[in-house]
Amino acid sequence: MLSLQDVLLRLTAYWTERGAMIVQPFNTEVGAGTANPATTLRVLGPEPWRVAYVEPSVRPDDSRYGQNPNRLQTHTQFQVILKPDPGDPQEQYLASLEAIGVDLAAHDIRFVEDNWASPALGAWGLGWEVWLDGLEITQFTYFQQAGTLKLDPVSVEITYGIERIVMALQGVSHFADIDYAPGITYGEAFGQSEYEMSRYYLDEADIAATQRLYDLHAGEAQKMLDAGLAMPAYYNVLKCSHAFNVLDARGAVSTAERARAFALMRNLSKGVAELFVARRSELGFPLGTVASQEPPAPLAMPAVDQQARLLFEIGVEELPAAEVTRARDWLEATVSERLASTKLSHGQVQAYATPRRLVVLVEDVAPREADSVETVRGPRASAAFDATGAPTRAATGFAAKHGIEPASLDRVEQDGIEYVAVVRNVEGRRAPEVLSSLLAQVVVDLRSERNMRWSDPALSYARPVRWLLALLGDAAIPVTASQLTSGTTTRVQRVAAAPVVQVPSADGYLDFLREHDIVADAQARRSIILDAAGENAAKVSGRVDLEADASVVAEIVNLVESPMPILGTFDKRYLDLPPEILTSVMRKHQRYLPLRTTDGLLPHFLTFANGGCDVATVTRGNEAVVRARFEDALFFWEADQKVPLETMKDGLAKLAFEETLGSMADRAGRIAVIAKALGERLGLDGAERATLHRAADLAKFDLGSQMVIEMTSLAGTMARYYATNAGERPAVADALADMERPRTSDDAVATSTAGAILAVADRADLLVGLFAVGANPTGSSDPFALRRAALGLLATIREHSLFDAITTGDILRVAATAIDAQGVAVSESALSATEAFVQARFEQSLLDAGNAPDAVAAVLPLAGEPRRAEATLTDVERLAGEDQFASIVEAVQRVRRLIKDADPDGNPALLTATVEQQLATSVEKLQRALDSGSITLPQLISASSETLNVLNTFLDEVLVMDENREVRDARIALLASVTRIANRTGIDWDAASRLLATGYKPATVTG
Amino acid sequence: MLSLQDVLLRLTAYWTERGAMIVQPFNTEVGAGTANPATTLRVLGPEPWRVAYVEPSVRPDDSRYGQNPNRLQTHTQFQVILKPDPGDPQEQYLASLEAIGVDLAAHDIRFVEDNWASPALGAWGLGWEVWLDGLEITQFTYFQQAGTLKLDPVSVEITYGIERIVMALQGVSHFADIDYAPGITYGEAFGQSEYEMSRYYLDEADIAATQRLYDLHAGEAQKMLDAGLAMPAYYNVLKCSHAFNVLDARGAVSTAERARAFALMRNLSKGVAELFVARRSELGFPLGTVASQEPPAPLAMPAVDQQARLLFEIGVEELPAAEVTRARDWLEATVSERLASTKLSHGQVQAYATPRRLVVLVEDVAPREADSVETVRGPRASAAFDATGAPTRAATGFAAKHGIEPASLDRVEQDGIEYVAVVRNVEGRRAPEVLSSLLAQVVVDLRSERNMRWSDPALSYARPVRWLLALLGDAAIPVTASQLTSGTTTRVQRVAAAPVVQVPSADGYLDFLREHDIVADAQARRSIILDAAGENAAKVSGRVDLEADASVVAEIVNLVESPMPILGTFDKRYLDLPPEILTSVMRKHQRYLPLRTTDGLLPHFLTFANGGCDVATVTRGNEAVVRARFEDALFFWEADQKVPLETMKDGLAKLAFEETLGSMADRAGRIAVIAKALGERLGLDGAERATLHRAADLAKFDLGSQMVIEMTSLAGTMARYYATNAGERPAVADALADMERPRTSDDAVATSTAGAILAVADRADLLVGLFAVGANPTGSSDPFALRRAALGLLATIREHSLFDAITTGDILRVAATAIDAQGVAVSESALSATEAFVQARFEQSLLDAGNAPDAVAAVLPLAGEPRRAEATLTDVERLAGEDQFASIVEAVQRVRRLIKDADPDGNPALLTATVEQQLATSVEKLQRALDSGSITLPQLISASSETLNVLNTFLDEVLVMDENREVRDARIALLASVTRIANRTGIDWDAASRLLATGYKPATVTG
Repeated sequence: MLSLQDVLLRLTAYWTERGAMIVQPFNTEVGAGTANPATTLRVLGPEPWRVAYVEPSVRPDDSRYGQNPNRLQTHTQFQVILKPDPGDPQEQYLASLEAIGVDLAAHDIRFVEDNWASPALGAWGLGWEVWLDGLEITQFTYFQQAGTLKLDPVSVEITYGIERIVMALQGVSHFADIDYAPGITYGEAFGQSEYEMSRYYLDEADIAATQRLYDLHAGEAQKMLDAGLAMPAYYNVLKCSHAFNVLDARGAVSTAERARAFALMRNLSKGVAELFVARRSELGFPLGTVASQEPPAPLAMPAVDQQARLLFEIGVEELPAAEVTRARDWLEATVSERLASTKLSHGQVQAYATPRRLVVLVEDVAPREADSVETVRGPRASAAFDATGAPTRAATGFAAKHGIEPASLDRVEQDGIEYVAVVRNVEGRRAPEVLSSLLAQVVVDLRSERNMRWSDPALSYARPVRWLLALLGDAAIPVTASQLTSGTTTRVQRVAAAPVVQVPSADGYLDFLREHDIVADAQARRSIILDAAGENAAKVSGRVDLEADASVVAEIVNLVESPMPILGTFDKRYLDLPPEILTSVMRKHQRYLPLRTTDGLLPHFLTFANGGCDVATVTRGNEAVVRARFEDALFFWEADQKVPLETMKDGLAKLAFEETLGSMADRAGRIAVIAKALGERLGLDGAERATLHRAADLAKFDLGSQMVIEMTSLAGTMARYYATNAGERPAVADALADMERPRTSDDAVATSTAGAILAVADRADLLVGLFAVGANPTGSSDPFALRRAALGLLATIREHSLFDAITTGDILRVAATAIDAQGVAVSESALSATEAFVQARFEQSLLDAGNAPDAVAAVLPLAGEPRRAEATLTDVERLAGEDQFASIVEAVQRVRRLIKDADPDGNPALLTATVEQQLATSVEKLQRALDSGSITLPQLISASSETLNVLNTFLDEVLVMDENREVRDARIALLASVTRIANRTGIDWDAASRLLATGYKPATVTG
Repeated sequence: MLSLQDVLLRLTAYWTERGAMIVQPFNTEVGAGTANPATTLRVLGPEPWRVAYVEPSVRPDDSRYGQNPNRLQTHTQFQVILKPDPGDPQEQYLASLEAIGVDLAAHDIRFVEDNWASPALGAWGLGWEVWLDGLEITQFTYFQQAGTLKLDPVSVEITYGIERIVMALQGVSHFADIDYAPGITYGEAFGQSEYEMSRYYLDEADIAATQRLYDLHAGEAQKMLDAGLAMPAYYNVLKCSHAFNVLDARGAVSTAERARAFALMRNLSKGVAELFVARRSELGFPLGTVASQEPPAPLAMPAVDQQARLLFEIGVEELPAAEVTRARDWLEATVSERLASTKLSHGQVQAYATPRRLVVLVEDVAPREADSVETVRGPRASAAFDATGAPTRAATGFAAKHGIEPASLDRVEQDGIEYVAVVRNVEGRRAPEVLSSLLAQVVVDLRSERNMRWSDPALSYARPVRWLLALLGDAAIPVTASQLTSGTTTRVQRVAAAPVVQVPSADGYLDFLREHDIVADAQARRSIILDAAGENAAKVSGRVDLEADASVVAEIVNLVESPMPILGTFDKRYLDLPPEILTSVMRKHQRYLPLRTTDGLLPHFLTFANGGCDVATVTRGNEAVVRARFEDALFFWEADQKVPLETMKDGLAKLAFEETLGSMADRAGRIAVIAKALGERLGLDGAERATLHRAADLAKFDLGSQMVIEMTSLAGTMARYYATNAGERPAVADALADMERPRTSDDAVATSTAGAILAVADRADLLVGLFAVGANPTGSSDPFALRRAALGLLATIREHSLFDAITTGDILRVAATAIDAQGVAVSESALSATEAFVQARFEQSLLDAGNAPDAVAAVLPLAGEPRRAEATLTDVERLAGEDQFASIVEAVQRVRRLIKDADPDGNPALLTATVEQQLATSVEKLQRALDSGSITLPQLISASSETLNVLNTFLDEVLVMDENREVRDARIALLASVTRIANRTGIDWDAASRLLATGYKPATVTG
């Protein structure tokens, strides 16, 4: 068994033998090997670089006092940079695992999508986390950008997580038990330091002093940039970054501060990168520049003389799961479409995709295109020959251009006019030639939603394309795209005895792959998975909840080329944990299918390895992973329950929220005040009031729990558990869970009254508070997710009639009062900006739901009462096709155009004409019928038919704008009383009018 | 050829195979591998520890912009800690050199005394720098203390200087040319960083910000100590220390600040060490404790039956050169003395010593001690037997005590009285037994001026004792001292085919060693060296200046066991450098003998390897070393001369002197003001005045030169060169050189007038300034070397009659005025404390010179005029034996006793008696003869003989204390005029009187 030290030495030896330079870990704290300038700076610019090094990586936030078996404030990374991408970095990496004793054939090693970005370094890349039997052991990234600069060439970064790898190799379950060196364990060597540094980072580091360190190093970094010194600037950026991380671990970084800090560090990193590149350029790139490779010579064009099946395979490194499906669809459509633009006849086009290959099969491809006739029209026949029949200059010119004698010109007729023309028989191209260029273009055009570059100078895709295989029947078609040239081999499972195999023919290719343990057809893989789910669940008398786990199943289908079920077991005692925790771990982190009965979860999980492996080994590995994760959760669960709720809530004082708005405790306090005030306004009493008050006092307490600090998605869920277990009433526990909902746009909103009020209070505080301190979203930047908060607020209000009694404006004003009371002034302009922001979100949500823009505009005046607005919108759209509505709109608009916004005092006695008196009487009756206050559109319509008739008569017969001013005013006053009634619907009549004018018909009618 | 990377990997492999754990470089800047907690903390306490690691060591002060071929701000150390000392660490180390390709037999590898101490870490140890052909490649230390704690067990620390080793192995002369890894040089990999970090450390780091970092980390360190967290405290100590080093490189650390910072860091390190040990103890020492070893069984005691030569050899690791001589003397004296306390007869005792062995040979040792008779006296015979002749109780008791019958008691006579007695024949012990214990005790008692511990639990010496060899003739004598047991082997040259050899006999041992290339006799080694010096010098037509190089020769004698001359050559162009630089480098740094003709230095040097080696290889190596050192010097020399003197002097503003007293520029400014003021006081004019003024304006400018920053001992020397080369007058250049003298107590003082005035001004400023700011020396602490300054001041004054015109008090007052003028108030009490301090130094210097304390006391009133005081002291001591002086002293004291300190107005008219009138007349005559002002003792004596006679008559005949007050006053006034004259000598008459009373005779008389 190798010690950890041996593993490092072997990796060092392995990469040294492959030409890597070895450098030392950096001598100031870094969060990852990436931060070592041997990576950060050397990936910049055109110089080649190949380096390997150990990097003890310091993450204050991961401090666990050495108690957590898997998490350390300092863990050991082994970092490799290959610049340029050597073309086979995955294979080189896998061989390095063999060098440290990993039996590749026995284990399940997977490349699972995991993209990387460091906002602070202005860097990103695409790649994977590498799984060893479900355990993440390596981060593998194609670096695309660093210091905000685009990288050319791209570097491959391989970061081994040494403790994890060694724990797996040695079969120990706590880092402290790792055999570090002969006769000394990891715990013996570093346990004390781990404990003490955890104490420092979590409890003892002086916040003010650390803040000063941050400022000082930021200042020095900028000064060094100004002095043109990249390296000292970078040192200071790293020290600045470490100080930030310490502040973060001490809970002293608010969201706003985080955003500011990241912006600062990104700018500094950008400065460093630009300086470094400029300096290397000045120095003339001492290490040389990466030479571009000559592509290999393409195959000869084959002779094909009969119809055949086309096989085209694009070999890729492991694609993201979603891309597998997307690429298959695109490939099938694209090949079909492009073939259609040729004259090559063919049968069905069918594409398949796995994480490592995109395959398209085309049936019955003709050996060559059909011949065709090409006609080029020249001048009119009448202008081509003169009276003598001799060709004019127009004809001779045209003929000369096409290389023929004027006498040989043909004639064609078009739209009854005769022209001279050149007509040629065009011979169809041979299929290999057509396909060669068509398929090459397909490769060049291949794109994903998020694309990357690799060693190839011209291609760009989700992951590197590494090989092409093109066969027409058994004839190899040469396809050359940038530096890739097609061959007649494919790559099968990497652990196969022969991982690269000759493909004899396009015929039977799917079966051929099957024989090599690859299932190209996603549907087939899905079937295997579902069958295995059934079979394996049955073994433990359980089932898989295919509805709840649909997305996990869909992902697994695209994670492996050959799903091999692995039924794992975990200790029953973990079932004491809330199922949300277990399923969250299994699904989100591990892509495992939980197994259950109607009574709940079983102590089992189902996962799928990629093809042949040693099932026992892989099962054991995955079980160890899940055990470690559950052990973590259990640790938090038990530790949290020893803490009284109030104490946990006290911990919120240590969690910074925003500089001006204070800690999370301040925020929770405001939420409580707002919620209680809303409760009064909405007339809560009795048990509901008591529930609200208790829940308000406990609001967000679970943010102080270790579990939620670790898995933020469990906020609210854990509140419910912890509150219940602490003896709170179920209604209180439910309200605490409810208040966190909706978490996403498709999440349900709070169902309980107290929960709904708290949810509204929560979001109102967030919105008003951040607008008050000027942290409103700008452009696409919305660091506090205020858009989501506004939508959550609206969704909750729209679900609960309770809120009919208050406008959103008033809710926000209640929040403003609470914020004011904490000493943060909320200006009127901030408050109205908040209101406008919420209304804009409301408007957008109505539009997003497919409502007609004019209909939405028609109800916008009601945005402060979302439920009413929505109901009115429904009315407007429903009534849009009805004449009554159209009549009202027309009449109201006619009146409004007439009187504009005038509303004079009028003397009714001057309304002497009958129609005047009739209208006055009718309006009076209508007013009585509709009582006071707001009215709905249907109410207006049903009550106003008589008035409408009288009104129309009045408008037809009476000249409102009488010369006598008093008469005029009396008539206008009468009409104004009509618009006042109409306006009690809250509708924007102009918008309603536009809606009708555009001929809008309600969908229900159309449908 | 191994790359640097290969060297690191091989060393790692080598030490891993020997059971060392490998750790990573520390992740915050450290100045040396020692600072990594894997050393600093792990050497503490009883747990075993064996570790190896690479440590990039950051020394901001060594920044050279990457231009210096040998010096870098970050260099690579490879560090090994062996705890406990394995007993053969030197051998393990040498094998590691073989592992990286060093041919031990070809090279000259030496262990040259180099002790190590880190005040900031509260740590020290004894050991060596290891030389590879004159190049220091490794620091090898037995750690004795860390964090102020005594270490038990002791750790062996081996620190390889990787760049230097690799440069030697690869034969490159600039670090940038090192082959770092395949295809990449050191310069390519790190050159840019080296340049940029140099810029940061030397020019750009913000001083205020760095000072804040220092303070913040010091604060955090203390807080963590208070919190009981050793590791975070230590991190902060290191960061604090790095900030300090940056400040230092920026020239922002004054002497006082340095002292404060070191005290602070030492205290923090102490706290860390104590905490760490306490914590390990609480944890129960998880790595176990070092078990003490059983010593091997001693040899059997041999039978020896005839006279033989004794050989006793104590084998040691390389002793410091001075200890070799001291130990030889001690061994010879001690063995002689202890043999004398036995009854073992023997011939000559002769000791020899080399760096690796102490040998004593004793001729003609008898095989056993002579037999002897032992008599124990009992009671008087008269009391032993009663009248009947029967034994009394006294006799029976005495007999019983000695186990014999009363009847067997003997009788002895003593002082005429007869006693009973027990008389026994005592058989002499056998020689092996006598020697076995005697020699063991010699080993146990072996001590040096500075002793250390190693793996042995009881022994303590300058360096570890590793073997014992004891032979009496050819019989092995068992000698066991603590865990060492003697054998019959010795160790010869380490590179010998058989480094451990059997010694057949004590006879011919020196020849035996000679055959193994070891010259045990220092005189023989000296002869070899002198002969070789002559021969080799002759080869290049030069000579060695044996007087100037006497101390180097004496050192070489004790640096090697077998001097092998190596004649080296360097490029003639270095001879353009001032010879002081070249000789300073050759002697101080390399222990080379410079070769010269009467015209000056030759481009050659002579060094001595230790025994057989490949002369060409070793010559080449040494030449490379000297070339590198000269190249450094040349670089500075040329760079400095491009800088105008004024510009160089401007640089002094960047050199901090003391917090309150400002920069070195401030200090130089004060010196100029003081010197000019003294010049005025002393009446300088014309050319001398001009010289003084110009030199004062340039004072200390060379402290701003790179050469002096690098080699501080050249201050003044370089001033002369640079001033001359810049066209200053020779007198000015000389004055600038002079002002720095005397450097040590045996250095000559300034010879030129201007130089002497500047030297005095320099020291007066230093003394008054530091007393003014309260930085006076306390106890043994004298960080500013004020004692030396005071002595230098006095020595200069005593050499120059010029200063007769001013007292030291006045000189200090002139300095005080200049300091005041710069805004630093000098209190009267500070000024008088300074004066008292200088006078105390003066007094001590007179006492140290062997003068009689009373004689010194007699002239102390003249301490403010050192030259006069000294002259008077000479007079006093010379005249002490003469009657005239005794008479004067007696008379003066008689008068002083009579009149006490009275000095009334007296009416001479009342002096009517003849003797009164005679005395008055005589005194008046004496006054005329002696004029006014001070007088010397001889003057007094020669002029006062008549007065003395009259005075004595007066005192015998006149009752001074007449009843009539006026008469009394007239007589007292007359006598007071006598004491006034006597006091013009400045003598303390009480002290003079004591001197004579104790019968002091001047040495010249006695001799």
